[in-house]
Amino acid sequence: MPYQRTNALNYANENKERFLDKLKEVVAIPSVSTAEEHVPDIQKTAQWLKEELLALGLDNVKIYPTARHPLVYGDWLRAGPRAPTVLIYGHYDVQPETPLDKWDTIPFTPTIKGDNIYGRGTTDMKGQIVATLAAVEAILQAGDLPLNVKFIIEGEEEIGGPNLEDFIASHTDLLACDFALNPDTGMLAPDTPTITYALRGLAYFELRVYGPQQDLHSGLFGGVVHNPAQVLADLVAGMHDARGRVTLPGFYDAVIPLDEEERAELARLPLTEEFYLHESGSPALWGEEGYTPAERTGARPTLEVNGLYSGYIEKGSKTVLPAYAMAKISTRLVPEQDPQEVGQQLRAYLAENAPPTVTWELEQLSGSVASLSDRQSPWIQAYIEAAQSAWGTRPLFKREGGSVPVVVHFQELLGVDSVNIGFGLPSDNMHGPNEKLHLPTFYKGIEALIHFFYEVKSET
Amino acid sequence: MPYQRTNALNYANENKERFLDKLKEVVAIPSVSTAEEHVPDIQKTAQWLKEELLALGLDNVKIYPTARHPLVYGDWLRAGPRAPTVLIYGHYDVQPETPLDKWDTIPFTPTIKGDNIYGRGTTDMKGQIVATLAAVEAILQAGDLPLNVKFIIEGEEEIGGPNLEDFIASHTDLLACDFALNPDTGMLAPDTPTITYALRGLAYFELRVYGPQQDLHSGLFGGVVHNPAQVLADLVAGMHDARGRVTLPGFYDAVIPLDEEERAELARLPLTEEFYLHESGSPALWGEEGYTPAERTGARPTLEVNGLYSGYIEKGSKTVLPAYAMAKISTRLVPEQDPQEVGQQLRAYLAENAPPTVTWELEQLSGSVASLSDRQSPWIQAYIEAAQSAWGTRPLFKREGGSVPVVVHFQELLGVDSVNIGFGLPSDNMHGPNEKLHLPTFYKGIEALIHFFYEVKSET
Repeated sequence: MPYQRTNALNYANENKERFLDKLKEVVAIPSVSTAEEHVPDIQKTAQWLKEELLALGLDNVKIYPTARHPLVYGDWLRAGPRAPTVLIYGHYDVQPETPLDKWDTIPFTPTIKGDNIYGRGTTDMKGQIVATLAAVEAILQAGDLPLNVKFIIEGEEEIGGPNLEDFIASHTDLLACDFALNPDTGMLAPDTPTITYALRGLAYFELRVYGPQQDLHSGLFGGVVHNPAQVLADLVAGMHDARGRVTLPGFYDAVIPLDEEERAELARLPLTEEFYLHESGSPALWGEEGYTPAERTGARPTLEVNGLYSGYIEKGSKTVLPAYAMAKISTRLVPEQDPQEVGQQLRAYLAENAPPTVTWELEQLSGSVASLSDRQSPWIQAYIEAAQSAWGTRPLFKREGGSVPVVVHFQELLGVDSVNIGFGLPSDNMHGPNEKLHLPTFYKGIEALIHFFYEVKSET
Repeated sequence: MPYQRTNALNYANENKERFLDKLKEVVAIPSVSTAEEHVPDIQKTAQWLKEELLALGLDNVKIYPTARHPLVYGDWLRAGPRAPTVLIYGHYDVQPETPLDKWDTIPFTPTIKGDNIYGRGTTDMKGQIVATLAAVEAILQAGDLPLNVKFIIEGEEEIGGPNLEDFIASHTDLLACDFALNPDTGMLAPDTPTITYALRGLAYFELRVYGPQQDLHSGLFGGVVHNPAQVLADLVAGMHDARGRVTLPGFYDAVIPLDEEERAELARLPLTEEFYLHESGSPALWGEEGYTPAERTGARPTLEVNGLYSGYIEKGSKTVLPAYAMAKISTRLVPEQDPQEVGQQLRAYLAENAPPTVTWELEQLSGSVASLSDRQSPWIQAYIEAAQSAWGTRPLFKREGGSVPVVVHFQELLGVDSVNIGFGLPSDNMHGPNEKLHLPTFYKGIEALIHFFYEVKSET
């Protein structure tokens, strides 16, 4: 191993505490992108990142404002035009911290317990951002970077905001690269490095059902007025059949059937029923008949209720017949499904099934298509080597249930594949209460990234 | 007409403004019984009532504390043991003012617009209480009351609290009477006095469905974890069949079929489809097949969803697979249905239909049986005369969809029937936003009560 790489690894090993302090600093800023009151925190986080990139010695560091939340850019292009260029993606925004009462720690007060650090954004994905910054810092302390690096870190990932796509489309020169690195997709278990070669798309909706002109007394009107909460329940219930299939007309038409080779590959993943039972804490699993858990989460489209609201939901009782009921509904999509078409399918379902006793509105809040990466690309081969060096084991290949629209944008607008990896674990409670990051995996991740940057260089 | 009655009516006519001021005073106190933060307002309202009863010159005026909200009592028994005694019931607590954004006025700032006064509690039932106080005041200004009067005004009606029943059971001597007057049931239209001879019972539940141990990422777990919001929707949807009937096992077993005489009587009420469409503002009506609207609201049991909650319900999107979903569900019951048995039926339904992928809890928040009053009693005959004098028309007889447990308690514990009347209108938005009271009807109501007290005396 060349001495530079060794020096970089040693530097990373000696600076673990400092990297952890950096992570604590940025987790403490509540950069919730969906909430207006957190706009100053969003700006504070962008400023924090700008200062970190400057401290690394990067060039062209700049905060780019958008119509909503700003992006942070910085690059180091001194490896020259013959060296490959990696575009490192990140998002500094986080999910809302609700429900607060389910947290054992304070969401924006990073708290170490055992091997983990708890706090909103630790795993999704401030920990991943800090890991890439740490790897670049370690290499730069040991000499030059063996490749060109560009960072683009956005603030609207958790709200599916449109501004990243617009920014990429209007800055294709600035962002030009050979491949992207997206450390937002996690690992299947500690010491099980994982490459995610497929991501599901997302179409997110809010369905609003209106009945009477205003809330009514349930005794006086119960029995003659159709309750919008009941209608909403009927509509939501009808969106799946008894075999766990989504009933929206045409929902499966574009879905590519899984072939036997890929089913065999997915069968090698440790995503067993026992795994999902343990990770979720559910009493029993559920899903589309005829598919394994790994297939149902990675390779089949699904429909989820993300929120329900109607009437009186505080403590105690109120005998109200609500005027209004609302559901947040999202579908996870696989390649060839179009989020706008799925919106039309949902609209068609509602037009056919909503009774004339109510009116309804459907708003599409976001949409992104699914993506598939080439498992044979040199970048993915480089990560296989890097993971082997860091963990001593070849990574698993996974189709991921989540959605990373940026992978699609990079493919469509920049013409590049992404290496989708990351150091979050399934038990990290991403998006839920008690979000955490496993620190030994975080430190191993920094090591893997250092190897990766050297491997990319040595292969091209 | 004896000169005393004429003097009382004149006094009431000359003091309209003062009665209205009294109503404004008491509506301005936000006596929401379900909310802990309003406990001081509950106490303030009880104190206000105590002072009003003392100002009328009543005896034995006292605030009786209970385990939760106090009752206010006062009497005037100087008509002597040979005169009849009426127990006047009221409740000074009100429904929560939510949803605030749907109000055109400030809920606890009584506001006159045209012929109406707007504010939470105006019609349900502070206006009705002030009307009875005004009628007693007018008669006492003209001489003695022609009958003995006892007031019992509680603070837990809107939460179905158990303390009134306990108080009645332990104070049967204090409350002993010949009949009760309950001005909490309203009129079908202005100038259409109405006597409610049947009231539905109520059984109110909170159903909680638990899936995964905590909120999960809908992309990572969607397709393998059964979404509790979806399960709740399935369960709620299954509680009615396609004919609008409630599917709880045994729900209709105890229900007495309507006979032709009573169906003919109910058919005379102006509770047409048009009426309910207009009053509710719903696009179309709904309900159990084979029954008219008046039958469905008055004489048939129903099941309503009063509230729904799961997951993320704020603005925007959150891709959460919720750990928990909740529904507030209530059933309106007719004579012979038992609220505890209905609780068992709901529990049996859930045991049969809830999938093994979730766990559930059912809490029964309140329960009361339905009641039927004797349409031939002298007290009801007296109110027919009084209404004839005040409005020039004979009142209609109605079966009411709402629930007034106190009528049952008086029947079971004191052995007396109630005269269920009142001056609220269907368009008063009881329990909803923009609750109001129609002032011309309020003033007519005071007049009718004055007649009523004299009529009762003259009949016995």
